[in-house]
Amino acid sequence: MRDGRATVSSSQLGKMLGFTDAQVRKDLAYFGHFGQPGVGYRCHELNAEIRHILGTDRQWTVTMVGVGNMGRALLRYKGFAAQGFRIVAAFDVDPRVTGSRIEGIPVYSQEYLAEVVREQQIQLGMITVPAPQAQQVADQLVAAGIAGIVNFAPVTLSLPTEVALVGVDLTTELELLAFSVANRIASR
Amino acid sequence: MRDGRATVSSSQLGKMLGFTDAQVRKDLAYFGHFGQPGVGYRCHELNAEIRHILGTDRQWTVTMVGVGNMGRALLRYKGFAAQGFRIVAAFDVDPRVTGSRIEGIPVYSQEYLAEVVREQQIQLGMITVPAPQAQQVADQLVAAGIAGIVNFAPVTLSLPTEVALVGVDLTTELELLAFSVANRIASR
Repeated sequence: MRDGRATVSSSQLGKMLGFTDAQVRKDLAYFGHFGQPGVGYRCHELNAEIRHILGTDRQWTVTMVGVGNMGRALLRYKGFAAQGFRIVAAFDVDPRVTGSRIEGIPVYSQEYLAEVVREQQIQLGMITVPAPQAQQVADQLVAAGIAGIVNFAPVTLSLPTEVALVGVDLTTELELLAFSVANRIASR
Repeated sequence: MRDGRATVSSSQLGKMLGFTDAQVRKDLAYFGHFGQPGVGYRCHELNAEIRHILGTDRQWTVTMVGVGNMGRALLRYKGFAAQGFRIVAAFDVDPRVTGSRIEGIPVYSQEYLAEVVREQQIQLGMITVPAPQAQQVADQLVAAGIAGIVNFAPVTLSLPTEVALVGVDLTTELELLAFSVANRIASR
């Protein structure tokens, strides 16, 4: 779409993504009927369908708990808003940051977490507190009615099955890279 | 090991990780012969073996290109050093940060990238520049002889196959969470 194209073929998509055209067709076929033989995919249609599948064709309200280095960096990251993820509130226990705003986002004391999450109907939570505090924060978010959590703390969380969980462990990413280098496997 | 245990069973490991005991045994069996029926795994042995498999039983020298919000947060992140990843140099194009040190790590002007990477025999690179600059930085790292790259920029890099690549796109993690919530799938 950025290149002004109206259609794109599975082999063109594959080349851009580093997959085979068969893999592209197979992956999309999992979600339904896309594209036409000889024409390929209409870019606008495919984009709209994929955004609908991913749930990024709507606005999500997000909170962040933990405004240390990682939290601050993520609050300043512009990519979330562009995909419909609106961070509406942040929380911390440090009185030097609570009461302030970062990138316009209010930072509240963690004791108001349940209240603010409920009042603002916040759907998703990002956990950027140190590992020893992560489970307790997750429990608070779950009790407040959050539907999904991205956990940046390097610890495995235990959550009820109805709450979605994605774990992002940055050290694991470096380990994966080291493993690839040590074993001469390119993991793409 | 933290709990002072000498051995652990596949079902205990599975419970901690959220997998079945069969999956734990199958995954470990992929890499060789571990554990003994009735005894389980000796924790120290298993830990040493896994660290060897992952390549984290050695020191890796790492550089970071791009000292914006994300880069700064990662430079301050303590988890890397604990796993043997030593960030020895950072690079940026902004003269307000070049020449300074962040967490003791020198920030050089990007024009010295090839020279510093070669001289200090840096093995791994983290790319934390804006998306439009990422490919060019990757090309410079590859030309300087880097063995692997973790790319935090939200763009697909094209690299020679002998260079390992791990992509970390934070927006994708939120999209994955949104997908899980929208489709009521817990992705753990």
